[in-house]
Amino acid sequence: MTGNALDRLITLFSKLPGIGKKSAGRIVYYILDSNPALAGALAKELSELHQVIRKCSICGGFTETAICNICSDQNRDNTIICVVECAQDIRIIEDGREFSGVYHVLGGLIAPLEGVSPANLSIDKLISRLYDSKTGIQVKELILALNPTVEGDTTALYLQKILKEYPLLITRLASGMPVGGNIEYIDKLTLSRSFRGRVKI
Amino acid sequence: MTGNALDRLITLFSKLPGIGKKSAGRIVYYILDSNPALAGALAKELSELHQVIRKCSICGGFTETAICNICSDQNRDNTIICVVECAQDIRIIEDGREFSGVYHVLGGLIAPLEGVSPANLSIDKLISRLYDSKTGIQVKELILALNPTVEGDTTALYLQKILKEYPLLITRLASGMPVGGNIEYIDKLTLSRSFRGRVKI
Repeated sequence: MTGNALDRLITLFSKLPGIGKKSAGRIVYYILDSNPALAGALAKELSELHQVIRKCSICGGFTETAICNICSDQNRDNTIICVVECAQDIRIIEDGREFSGVYHVLGGLIAPLEGVSPANLSIDKLISRLYDSKTGIQVKELILALNPTVEGDTTALYLQKILKEYPLLITRLASGMPVGGNIEYIDKLTLSRSFRGRVKI
Repeated sequence: MTGNALDRLITLFSKLPGIGKKSAGRIVYYILDSNPALAGALAKELSELHQVIRKCSICGGFTETAICNICSDQNRDNTIICVVECAQDIRIIEDGREFSGVYHVLGGLIAPLEGVSPANLSIDKLISRLYDSKTGIQVKELILALNPTVEGDTTALYLQKILKEYPLLITRLASGMPVGGNIEYIDKLTLSRSFRGRVKI
């Protein structure tokens, strides 16, 4: 029917998250119908991606330089560290423009059933960042921006436990009803958390 | 925050159909976290795509050879031509395994408001295929597998009008496809029924 090159590319695209076989077909035919410059640009960026992007030696986020823009930004408050599961979460939080501290990427969440133990996460490195003997900077707050799931809760509890001796405020993102949500459609656990975390107005 | 290479790739992915900015972000971070072989394979296939894939000189479908697998297949009935809007429709109809004739890609549908007139479509070529003076093969049936939209209806009517003097049965895929729908998203069974229930126009 169609050449193998098409099938191979469709198969590759359908491996990406959120893209099924039909969407992959649509995408590949779209690329084929488009200016070859689009395919060329995609090919170039993809081929260079892993050489160009590395992990920031401080926070673990993705960067093109040894230290990322956030860690090297003098205007950011490096006494507040926001702990995230993966590097992508940094982008999402940055898009919100709410946070002006720095980040730390754990590289996962504790999940014994999936074989992820605390040793697999970047926890030692996080602890080493809490006090910088060279500059004397002492981290004041650790915001755990972890998903409100079993794994997120477990990881948050673990971190709270091992860090309790440090002179440090440990907080977690509020869990509750999403803005614009409807009580009628909120699940019981979320409603329960909203009640427990209710705030004075 | 993150390197420019990431942003560039996310922007490129978000240009593809069905991929918004958030999905593009997910995809790029997925590729970054995956084995570099995935990015490498995608880059290779994309860079070669436009060189490797060409249009079949008979039907206009995509192929890696001068004449596509379907047109060169001796087992297919070349007295029945299925007329489709674009090359991608061939793949979808072939997946349904209902049709054993050959195809003809119009390259669009008549849409005056978008500046697509009959002259922009591969209609002359279709007419030249109706009788092959060399082999004496006379096409018996033309199945118009065009979307049941205003443009599809217009194109079907136009073809019916200009081809009425040819000794030819012209049929159209049966209703069964939802009006206003798109061939691309029809399930196989519905597509199969549409083939079986095609009506003379």
